[in-house]
Amino acid sequence: MTPSSQAGNAPAETDGTLGEIGEFGLIRRVATGRSQPAATIVGPGDDAAIVAAPDGRVVASTDVLVETVHFRLDWSTPEQVGRRAAAANLADIAAMGAVPTALLVGLACPANTPVATLTALADGLWAEAGVVGAGVVGGDVASSAQLMVAVTALGSLEGRPPVLRGGARPGDLVAVRGRLGWAAAGLAVLQRGFRSPAVVVNAHRVPEPPYAAGPEAAKAGATAMIDVSDGLLADLGHIARASGVRIDLRSATLDVPARLRDVGAALGADPRHWLLTGGDDHALAATFPAEALLPFGWVRVGTVEAADGADSVVLVDGRPYDGGPAGWDHFA
Amino acid sequence: MTPSSQAGNAPAETDGTLGEIGEFGLIRRVATGRSQPAATIVGPGDDAAIVAAPDGRVVASTDVLVETVHFRLDWSTPEQVGRRAAAANLADIAAMGAVPTALLVGLACPANTPVATLTALADGLWAEAGVVGAGVVGGDVASSAQLMVAVTALGSLEGRPPVLRGGARPGDLVAVRGRLGWAAAGLAVLQRGFRSPAVVVNAHRVPEPPYAAGPEAAKAGATAMIDVSDGLLADLGHIARASGVRIDLRSATLDVPARLRDVGAALGADPRHWLLTGGDDHALAATFPAEALLPFGWVRVGTVEAADGADSVVLVDGRPYDGGPAGWDHFA
Repeated sequence: MTPSSQAGNAPAETDGTLGEIGEFGLIRRVATGRSQPAATIVGPGDDAAIVAAPDGRVVASTDVLVETVHFRLDWSTPEQVGRRAAAANLADIAAMGAVPTALLVGLACPANTPVATLTALADGLWAEAGVVGAGVVGGDVASSAQLMVAVTALGSLEGRPPVLRGGARPGDLVAVRGRLGWAAAGLAVLQRGFRSPAVVVNAHRVPEPPYAAGPEAAKAGATAMIDVSDGLLADLGHIARASGVRIDLRSATLDVPARLRDVGAALGADPRHWLLTGGDDHALAATFPAEALLPFGWVRVGTVEAADGADSVVLVDGRPYDGGPAGWDHFA
Repeated sequence: MTPSSQAGNAPAETDGTLGEIGEFGLIRRVATGRSQPAATIVGPGDDAAIVAAPDGRVVASTDVLVETVHFRLDWSTPEQVGRRAAAANLADIAAMGAVPTALLVGLACPANTPVATLTALADGLWAEAGVVGAGVVGGDVASSAQLMVAVTALGSLEGRPPVLRGGARPGDLVAVRGRLGWAAAGLAVLQRGFRSPAVVVNAHRVPEPPYAAGPEAAKAGATAMIDVSDGLLADLGHIARASGVRIDLRSATLDVPARLRDVGAALGADPRHWLLTGGDDHALAATFPAEALLPFGWVRVGTVEAADGADSVVLVDGRPYDGGPAGWDHFA
């Protein structure tokens, strides 16, 4: 352990390791010189941050990413890992119909982690937060055997009611906005030892959630919403169970992009399976009243039906999906 | 990995491992049957939680605890680890002069972790949150080689200005509330292979931060405040540097409790060193205007002086402390 008084004398470069510059040295290095958005009332450097919550409520979500489980530093740069860690949380805020305002970051990593790795990771967190105008307002760093990033995102509903998972009603239409299956295709490529095509590999490295579509869906009257992190079938299953309904997807409405078809052909895999079960693109899936005018970019993909005691809460063309496990959790 | 549809069929006991019941099984098990406080607008089970922020601001802080670095499961029960993880964050909220409202928990652990360990850890988080009337409103769980808990606490300033680190002015008095050195003594006992006296060992296992003293100090006009997590000298150093002042502690005002004197004698250690440099009790240290009436339980321990370009920002009886490193960070 390093006396904090020594950490205070550390140079300002990105040379060395976390163990050499210490906890306080790292925090100074990643927090200094960043410009905070208006919502940040008190940023990093005190016991806690203070963030505006203009309508008297704050939306909050935490996600944990672990090296070798969620990412590999030989597959992604540290900056890409930071962007992805931020995106996973920011998408959760958007899926409530809210606008992200701030991130807090809990980092654990080996003491011999290069400072350059950690500043790049921080750059990635800042870059993704910047996409939605949010700031990184606080965090903590501890030593561990394995690199792990726990991100908490905060957001504002701007006076609107939240869009929860439990509001879907029979007769509603089901729509999605954003990419489906791209990150799964990219992961499959990487797992086979390839590095291209870049467009799918990069979709795994840095998802592009349609953040603004969350508040837009809320304004358009969405009755339920979720971000697709476990796979479309699994996440629509969360909506169906929370709402006590059944969802029937129309597979013809789920176009398989030519790029995914090519990758599927190259790997001998069914690209439709990636669309239906691939997580980590953080598309948004929502239900709307049948008469709703869908906001820009949303595509209708199915219908909400009464549950009728059916076994499968999510069907594809009226039948249970038989293409394999319909979404995953993180334990074997 | 386990298909989420299988995790949905898991039994409701605490038998088995996380790998057997899966991510969703665990989340259901630790979230079900808890009663949420009024500040929780939307609790666990959706993409994000929603918490009341009545004055239009939210206070937020994140801390990371790692097994073998911050705790050992042969020294502390999982419930004690949960309490301690919560306390570390709740104390940060109190140190802003705020009242905690909610916790979010990012958990990473090996798939073979017993469910009973994780439910006990969750019980501890809930128990400590309950001390201040806060709820555990959300979280995430991932697999990792090492048990790690990242807790984010949210809080409300109830309309008051925050008490930051940078507000101390020459002439202010310095006061502390809460235990100093007890957790350090307990850790020293455990490191020597002993398990008693229980009162100091338990102080390491579960700190007892004086949560209510934070808002009380704010109401009494505290000019700067911090929670003692790195050690009194180190944490007053954070106030002194942020405020551009020097702090002079009067050692005669820091009574060494008889229990710490006994433990020091038994271990051949100087108990005053624990008082001055021991972290993890999460006492509160604050500065007040000289004429302030200190709230109940606060003890005056020193004075704020002009910095005068001095080398040591925190002095003891007018001199730099020479008893050893004055506080630690978490890297070697």
